[in-house]
Amino acid sequence: MSNAAEPANIMEAIVSLAKRRGFIYPSSEIYGGLNGFFDYGPLGAELKKNIRDCWWNDMVRRRDDIVGLESSIIMHPKVWEASGHVAGFTDPLVDCKVSKQRYRADQLFFAPVYIAQFALGRGSVGEASPPPSGFTWSNSPIFYVSALETENVEETLKEAAREHKRKKSIPGEFRLGGIRDMTEAKPEEIELIPSPATGEPGSLTEPRSFNMMFQTNVGAMTDASSVAYLRPETAQGMFVDFKNVVDTTRVKLPFGIAQIGKSFRNEITPRNFIFRSREFEQMEMEYFIHEDADWARCHEEWIAWCENWLKSIGLPASHLSRYTHPKEKLAFYSKGTVDIMFKYPFGVQELWGIAARGNYDLTQHATASGKPQELFDETSKKKFVPHVIEPAVGVDRILLAVLCAGYAVEDVTDEKGNVEKRTVLRFSPRIAPVKVAVLPLLKNKEQLTNRAKALHAKLQKRYAVQYDDGGAIGKRYRRQDEAGTPWCVTIDFETIEQPGDTFTLRERDTMAQRRITESELFSLLDEHVY
Amino acid sequence: MSNAAEPANIMEAIVSLAKRRGFIYPSSEIYGGLNGFFDYGPLGAELKKNIRDCWWNDMVRRRDDIVGLESSIIMHPKVWEASGHVAGFTDPLVDCKVSKQRYRADQLFFAPVYIAQFALGRGSVGEASPPPSGFTWSNSPIFYVSALETENVEETLKEAAREHKRKKSIPGEFRLGGIRDMTEAKPEEIELIPSPATGEPGSLTEPRSFNMMFQTNVGAMTDASSVAYLRPETAQGMFVDFKNVVDTTRVKLPFGIAQIGKSFRNEITPRNFIFRSREFEQMEMEYFIHEDADWARCHEEWIAWCENWLKSIGLPASHLSRYTHPKEKLAFYSKGTVDIMFKYPFGVQELWGIAARGNYDLTQHATASGKPQELFDETSKKKFVPHVIEPAVGVDRILLAVLCAGYAVEDVTDEKGNVEKRTVLRFSPRIAPVKVAVLPLLKNKEQLTNRAKALHAKLQKRYAVQYDDGGAIGKRYRRQDEAGTPWCVTIDFETIEQPGDTFTLRERDTMAQRRITESELFSLLDEHVY
Repeated sequence: MSNAAEPANIMEAIVSLAKRRGFIYPSSEIYGGLNGFFDYGPLGAELKKNIRDCWWNDMVRRRDDIVGLESSIIMHPKVWEASGHVAGFTDPLVDCKVSKQRYRADQLFFAPVYIAQFALGRGSVGEASPPPSGFTWSNSPIFYVSALETENVEETLKEAAREHKRKKSIPGEFRLGGIRDMTEAKPEEIELIPSPATGEPGSLTEPRSFNMMFQTNVGAMTDASSVAYLRPETAQGMFVDFKNVVDTTRVKLPFGIAQIGKSFRNEITPRNFIFRSREFEQMEMEYFIHEDADWARCHEEWIAWCENWLKSIGLPASHLSRYTHPKEKLAFYSKGTVDIMFKYPFGVQELWGIAARGNYDLTQHATASGKPQELFDETSKKKFVPHVIEPAVGVDRILLAVLCAGYAVEDVTDEKGNVEKRTVLRFSPRIAPVKVAVLPLLKNKEQLTNRAKALHAKLQKRYAVQYDDGGAIGKRYRRQDEAGTPWCVTIDFETIEQPGDTFTLRERDTMAQRRITESELFSLLDEHVY
Repeated sequence: MSNAAEPANIMEAIVSLAKRRGFIYPSSEIYGGLNGFFDYGPLGAELKKNIRDCWWNDMVRRRDDIVGLESSIIMHPKVWEASGHVAGFTDPLVDCKVSKQRYRADQLFFAPVYIAQFALGRGSVGEASPPPSGFTWSNSPIFYVSALETENVEETLKEAAREHKRKKSIPGEFRLGGIRDMTEAKPEEIELIPSPATGEPGSLTEPRSFNMMFQTNVGAMTDASSVAYLRPETAQGMFVDFKNVVDTTRVKLPFGIAQIGKSFRNEITPRNFIFRSREFEQMEMEYFIHEDADWARCHEEWIAWCENWLKSIGLPASHLSRYTHPKEKLAFYSKGTVDIMFKYPFGVQELWGIAARGNYDLTQHATASGKPQELFDETSKKKFVPHVIEPAVGVDRILLAVLCAGYAVEDVTDEKGNVEKRTVLRFSPRIAPVKVAVLPLLKNKEQLTNRAKALHAKLQKRYAVQYDDGGAIGKRYRRQDEAGTPWCVTIDFETIEQPGDTFTLRERDTMAQRRITESELFSLLDEHVY
């Protein structure tokens, strides 16, 4: 059946479809691309806008307790000092001094290799796979192997060991010692670990902290006084503008501030298509609650809200799960974080993080700015700093999730009984780039095209629709299936010759066809597109 | 009547209202702000989103010949070499070596000062104002004065001259020589012109070119190989993705590619509130036409389209005008540029530029990338590079225009016959942040609040609405006037006691009141909000 291919092949197929149908292009492709940056083509731009609009409508406009915000991407550098990003928003980085390549230390794995040798004294390291009879494992590692993170690091390292033995003509069987990443390497091991770029040891450096914020200079000076950063998250905008929002609107606790916007992270190794890119778009909301409020209940309510929202835009419950961050791994101020995970073809990965951050951020900004970030409790007559629940999600990750969940290749039987493949993107009508395609059965029959054009014009006032009169009707249906269009409406001879002014409505997922009137079509859209 | 105050005062009032009602805050205000950056608060974020959505709906979704795009903000640096921005996107800059201040040379004005002296030989420079009888103008300038651009540069320079004479006890009347800016200063004059920072001459440098693109580094290296720029315009995304769009969609000439997104320019002197900021949002469209097409007609059609669109979101025709760039000032490749100008309180300024750019951009990228950017003409069987018409407008400038055009302070008479001031923002319903406010006449009367809440919930499914039960009804109307809400609906005793389930509809601009049913209200919204 559908989607039975290997995960890697499925991702390849999705990336290829996304390019071929104008959802997603590599950025600056005519110049060879730019690693970690992507452009959204005509269908992708519509899909992305629909995801944003659904979120904004549900999160802001359809609620009375949440207001919107659009803060600037470049903020005062002190914002990022107070938030902790200047000091702590880092990845551990390893350089190869020879190739000048750089690697994330936690994505560069290595292992010592032991060789089974004849007549050597009994070693103490032979607790793993037993050496061949009459042989004994070398006492210390004979060499090291390394590999960048892959689906199967152990197999890659073993292959590297085999290759090294072959090249250096080292006889005997081998076994790997424990696999670790470069953040766990002992100082004396570092010069023994080969660089992935050269295959030779001696060129890797000890891991150092690399700040992931993109840096620039504002104003005509280019010195320390003018340094600024591209925001690595939208959330700080809500904290920095907290008092402004309180003072200029009529919000009362509990209330939220929501924002959609671009963020930037200088990832060392962007990967998994648009899942981890360097420029991405976030939808974040800070929900402020009283310091004495039941944060755990509020936290749970927001987790449930987010799960329901993901389902409302068509993600199947079967692909969603929860991951609760273990208490011992939380930051000291954190009360708890739960991630909603999504089953991507490349693994179960974080989609939406819902964090209970206490009053850490407001307190940090109060201290750094000298401006109190407090509210007044009318009951207790005391001032307090509100606590916050933060649901944070990436637009690009949602878009990738709906692409992956919606993608299918199916066997279908055409009018002549031939079995053929159809590729379909099963987008929810809420987010589908095109809601309806209007198809006159024949291109050269004015009665058909006039009726089709009139319907198209009427639909176009409210919805993103397409008019397509090119090719056989079956071919046009396939074209819309690939674009994820939920409905096609065909204007046929029954439309113009029979009473009732009905069209053929063809549904994408079932491929079922039925007659529908114009007003029924508008009701259908009104119900499903909101 | 309204708006009779001085322009400076009107701008002050608008900036103040924008802050007070949560339209626009200075960015990072608790840290003292960041010059040239702004945040949009709850009402501002809605207003901005509505402007974007109206443009996108009219430009992309309601047309069959234009598709959307969202390209990345950081693109390959070669894009900006090919486009000419690396070499030519510069402002002339003058440094003050003492204060370390920097100035845009074309915004720093100076003049030589001549003094009327007794019994000196007749000078040759006395063609302007005649010296007092028996006196003669000094033959050469006695000193220079300078001033940053203001509403009245001449007066500012004269004041500086008076001040200098006073300080240095220079007797006699004075007159200014010709006023020029620093780009026109002769080399020997530069050391005679005082720095605006210190008031003393000798510290200004000759003008040099300053590139206005924000620069950053992508990846772990921080050297020339990793330099990248924040885009200074969205337009290049459409050119770089031109072939991708042609190859992955069914567009046929003439067609357009449209994009909305953030752009960044490191302005030396950001000013006029959000009119010239360092981070801003653009709505640009590239309309590709055949090389033999009637570009002048297409150009004119787009100018008219843009003017009509501005009127459709409520800008009065009286505030709009056209400025045709003189042929001799156009770039060599340009066929013509017309700006739609808007009458801001600080002057008539460019709002929307509509440029006929020939095939310059595509040709530049073809040369730089080695990838032909051609289409095939089925008739002539020849390849050609399409020409382009480019309407480019800033979201923030439109938002400022609707704020300025909509702002009024009026005398109104309250229920008791007292004359009071009301502040109103006359936004078009298309872009108003709140479409309808639902007001129960009394807060503590359940029959009223239940009906109001039911109506509010129903409206909220489709529109941004507010529920307000706080304070006297007149006060609530004023509150909505200031937010630019076109309609208030009051649920009063007639609603619950009389048949018909009608509400009081109060119109913002006329302040007229009439009875309306729920279905009439939805029809009204359906007609005006699109």
